[in-house]
Amino acid sequence: MSDIAPTGTSNATRPESGRRLISADKVEGTAVYNRAGDRLGTVENIMIDKISGRVAFAVMSFGGFLGIGENHHPLPWSVLTYDTTKGGYVVDLTREQLEGAPTYAAADNVDLSDTHGQRVYDYYKAQPFWLEVS
Amino acid sequence: MSDIAPTGTSNATRPESGRRLISADKVEGTAVYNRAGDRLGTVENIMIDKISGRVAFAVMSFGGFLGIGENHHPLPWSVLTYDTTKGGYVVDLTREQLEGAPTYAAADNVDLSDTHGQRVYDYYKAQPFWLEVS
Repeated sequence: MSDIAPTGTSNATRPESGRRLISADKVEGTAVYNRAGDRLGTVENIMIDKISGRVAFAVMSFGGFLGIGENHHPLPWSVLTYDTTKGGYVVDLTREQLEGAPTYAAADNVDLSDTHGQRVYDYYKAQPFWLEVS
Repeated sequence: MSDIAPTGTSNATRPESGRRLISADKVEGTAVYNRAGDRLGTVENIMIDKISGRVAFAVMSFGGFLGIGENHHPLPWSVLTYDTTKGGYVVDLTREQLEGAPTYAAADNVDLSDTHGQRVYDYYKAQPFWLEVS
């Protein structure tokens, strides 16, 4: 998809900005900000529920250098809002809320399918839909 | 996520196979087969509805060499079933159904958000949910 601007550029140069669908490739690598405009990290990966086809998590990465010491901060998809002026996702969470949230060392490769994912959803008061129906 | 085997390997070597969630990275690159076991192509990308967070399409690529002459065959997520014995997705479609389905030259970078996506969903008799609620 070579004629589409990479994510993170301003809305004015994003021809796909009005599109309802976005490719997973473009979600990954997009910056995440808080309401105050601080850059919190980058979407590293997204986790999809195989059965319902719904995105359960956007895993935000922050810290580290060349992958060493990097942390993963899984966020329920529902807490992310795309902000065209910022060219990234905004989460309406205070610094305290984020600092208290579950994070994992990237190297630990934590499985979010089960209790870890439930813990994250509980923290953000979201419904862990993939644990309800099987 | 270095301790997880790449997709396309057998179930026996896939520690994540019983997991309910899968990373978008692992869906991409996974083979697609028909019921007869013919390899039809590879999942090139997945398209997510920004609003509902649901996966609308798995875009299967086939043909071509080094991207030249490659075709994209968008499939509604709902027509794909993961087969652990094959280590890939299976679609319950005849060769005739697939040959008659909408395909696009990869180079054309077709926008599936709108009429093209609706055409694909109509063909597979699926509900284009992202066109219904806005």
